[in-house]
Amino acid sequence: MTDQAHMRRAIDLAAHGRGATSPNPVVGCVILDASGQVAGEGFHAYAGGPHAEVVALRAAGERARGGTAYVTLEPCDHTGRTGPCALALLEAGVARVVVAVSDPNPTAAGGADRLRRHGVTVETGLLAEEAGRGNAEWLTSVRLGRPHVTWKYAATLDGRSAAADGTSQWITSPESRADVHRLRGEAGAIVAGIGTVLADDPRLTVRRPAAEDSPAGVDPALPPADGAPAMRPPLRVVVDSDARTPLTARVLDGRAPTLVAVAADADAGALAARTEVVRLARRRPYGIDLAGLLSELHRRQIVSVLLEGGPALAGSFLREGLIDRVVGYLAPALLGAGAAALGPAGVATIAETHRLEFEDVTPTGPDLRLTARPVPLKEM
Amino acid sequence: MTDQAHMRRAIDLAAHGRGATSPNPVVGCVILDASGQVAGEGFHAYAGGPHAEVVALRAAGERARGGTAYVTLEPCDHTGRTGPCALALLEAGVARVVVAVSDPNPTAAGGADRLRRHGVTVETGLLAEEAGRGNAEWLTSVRLGRPHVTWKYAATLDGRSAAADGTSQWITSPESRADVHRLRGEAGAIVAGIGTVLADDPRLTVRRPAAEDSPAGVDPALPPADGAPAMRPPLRVVVDSDARTPLTARVLDGRAPTLVAVAADADAGALAARTEVVRLARRRPYGIDLAGLLSELHRRQIVSVLLEGGPALAGSFLREGLIDRVVGYLAPALLGAGAAALGPAGVATIAETHRLEFEDVTPTGPDLRLTARPVPLKEM
Ligand SMILES: NC(=O)c1ccc[n+]([C@@H]2O[C@H](COP(=O)([O-])OP(=O)(O)OC[C@H]3O[C@@H](n4cnc5c(N)ncnc54)[C@H](OP(=O)(O)O)[C@@H]3O)[C@@H](O)[C@H]2O)c1
Ligand SMILES: NC(=O)c1ccc[n+]([C@@H]2O[C@H](COP(=O)([O-])OP(=O)(O)OC[C@H]3O[C@@H](n4cnc5c(N)ncnc54)[C@H](OP(=O)(O)O)[C@@H]3O)[C@@H](O)[C@H]2O)c1
Repeated sequence: MTDQAHMRRAIDLAAHGRGATSPNPVVGCVILDASGQVAGEGFHAYAGGPHAEVVALRAAGERARGGTAYVTLEPCDHTGRTGPCALALLEAGVARVVVAVSDPNPTAAGGADRLRRHGVTVETGLLAEEAGRGNAEWLTSVRLGRPHVTWKYAATLDGRSAAADGTSQWITSPESRADVHRLRGEAGAIVAGIGTVLADDPRLTVRRPAAEDSPAGVDPALPPADGAPAMRPPLRVVVDSDARTPLTARVLDGRAPTLVAVAADADAGALAARTEVVRLARRRPYGIDLAGLLSELHRRQIVSVLLEGGPALAGSFLREGLIDRVVGYLAPALLGAGAAALGPAGVATIAETHRLEFEDVTPTGPDLRLTARPVPLKEM
Repeated sequence: MTDQAHMRRAIDLAAHGRGATSPNPVVGCVILDASGQVAGEGFHAYAGGPHAEVVALRAAGERARGGTAYVTLEPCDHTGRTGPCALALLEAGVARVVVAVSDPNPTAAGGADRLRRHGVTVETGLLAEEAGRGNAEWLTSVRLGRPHVTWKYAATLDGRSAAADGTSQWITSPESRADVHRLRGEAGAIVAGIGTVLADDPRLTVRRPAAEDSPAGVDPALPPADGAPAMRPPLRVVVDSDARTPLTARVLDGRAPTLVAVAADADAGALAARTEVVRLARRRPYGIDLAGLLSELHRRQIVSVLLEGGPALAGSFLREGLIDRVVGYLAPALLGAGAAALGPAGVATIAETHRLEFEDVTPTGPDLRLTARPVPLKEM
């Protein structure tokens, strides 16, 4: 097997941590012994849990000596909740370390340097793009100082998310709706506009499909990873300049924490007595400061946001360059009239189009799930 | 190799005739000798040319005796421009004939019966759906007495085909546009509404990408199949109730025949002096009788129509159940404002949605080409 194959395996391992490591990155590690046989594998399973390198070194034991480690992210050099991984690799006597993505985090970086200073061969950049995609949320968070934003929408082939009379249930299939719950489960926060809250009264919780189908169903918590603490449900965020969220809204049902973002001058007394409220600057022509909202979420260590619309809010995020990924569930259906999936996004003429790049197309039942990212791709 | 594998090969062979056999079906044929070895292959290459069975029998010669023939469509039993294929198979001494799709055409059917009467084993229905898809245009034409209609559109992820100011060049990629020319080349007629003619002044001819990129370029004719007559370019059709097509419109440039469909009471004198005009009944709330237009095209032996829009005309075709296939070129782009790809199609509430089924998803450069068909699928 080649370096590439081992790194790809490490990337696959890393993916097992998705949704559970926040605010940490996902990391995978494969250790070969001196003869090139796989001696240990590991991944970072949950925030506060052992790092991938440590898990893999434990599995490899003495066989790590003189061997090679493949790590999807540069081994850390700082002592956080766990000791520095660079030190652990040195102590185990690993002779060569192959890294996909260098650590952009100033407090954690330096692992490669330390290893090199102690005579370990370090190579970086192998499958960096692929590994970076697996850590897109965390990398965005570290590099841009704001959470990674995925805009999710559901629409017909002709780009509509409701019929002329406003009805919209169900445009997409049960399989697509289940997939949305998977996305929610991976997010640190789920954001919706007041328009959507008033129109649809969504819960914005992570549910299994069965629970969703029975409105009275209890939301089963996601099963925690082995030995991990039960996962914190994603924060629900309503963007609501004038604090119009009804006190009876499902999003205030207490099943998960909820933050309502209102304008600095909003009359939010009743709401603030009921849930957490954050005040942000008003913006022209309408609404509140979305970059400010993301800073606030970053301050709360939220690494990834799932933006569930509606069209007006999504248009504003897009206009301000705050969308990093688009996930569209496309139903094989045509309406010819009704609300568009995306509202005004600052494009007046074709040259200003927001250009993306398709990254993935996967069927979800009868529908298609399209994943795309803005181009030029933000440097990973 | 199995029956299935041989029939699949016959279906692949048949596809070589696509776009050149109209108004005939595409047909492929594989002949095995008595020992099960492939002895001959053939397909129907162009209208008026030899049928697939005859080509394959010629290749097989004496080896066909006691052998098996796989044919994608029931061998004909009538003497048209060529003799009946059922007779040719009998004379060659073929012992077994495997047919995918039975011939729905009353004047051609009976081939299977004749073969059976003469002691040949005939099996029908193998891979009928797959083979039927390859002949969807022709089967629709025979069964419904009107051409098969493909609606083609190009749009952004949010279902728009122009920006707010009306600009739209180029939403999709050169690869997508080249693929549209392939679709045009396969169609018997290309239909557009007067709205599109007035807005875009399209040529509606089949061009190679190079010619399209240089506006002054000559349109190279498609190369004819070996020994076949040069192909007739698709008929250009403008749906134009009040005969507003400008005499200077490119669609009247003489590079291909053009038919303008006007209302029975339209003042079409000047236009009729310049090109062929057909008169059709007016319909409420607007426009002319589209089913009547398709009957007229059927009368002219046109088997397949490529409907190129715009949104208003496509909505009417959809509302009247006259669309058999949708081909959408989806650009990885977002506009948030501008004209929708599809106009009113008779859907007031979500229960009335036009439901389709995805049949194919293929990248065309950076774009995605989505192919879908209405459900319930019209019986093939
Ligand atoms: N198909 C889908 O995937 C999907 C998903 C979600 C929703 N929907 C549909 O979308 C509809 C609601 O959408 P909508 O567009 O009316 O409402 P929305 O996008 O959910 O919320 C828009 C509201 O958010 C507030 N806001 C605050 N700051 C903003 C900013 N910077 N930019 C934009 N808005 C800001 C504004 O109201 P204030 O200023 O008054 O606070 C604005 O009216 C519903 O019918 C729902 O069913 C569809
Ligand atoms: N993205 C794409 O794939 C694509 C493709 C084509 C066009 N377009 C765009 O679409 C725009 C034009 O579209 P449009 O919707 O205005 O015009 P259209 O669909 O091209 O033509 C509509 C016109 O056709 C006539 N018509 C006659 N019988 C009809 C019937 N039964 N139903 C509907 N219309 C009938 C009507 O005018 P009369 O009754 O006066 O004859 C009607 O106004 C242009 O901007 C063009 O760029 C986009």
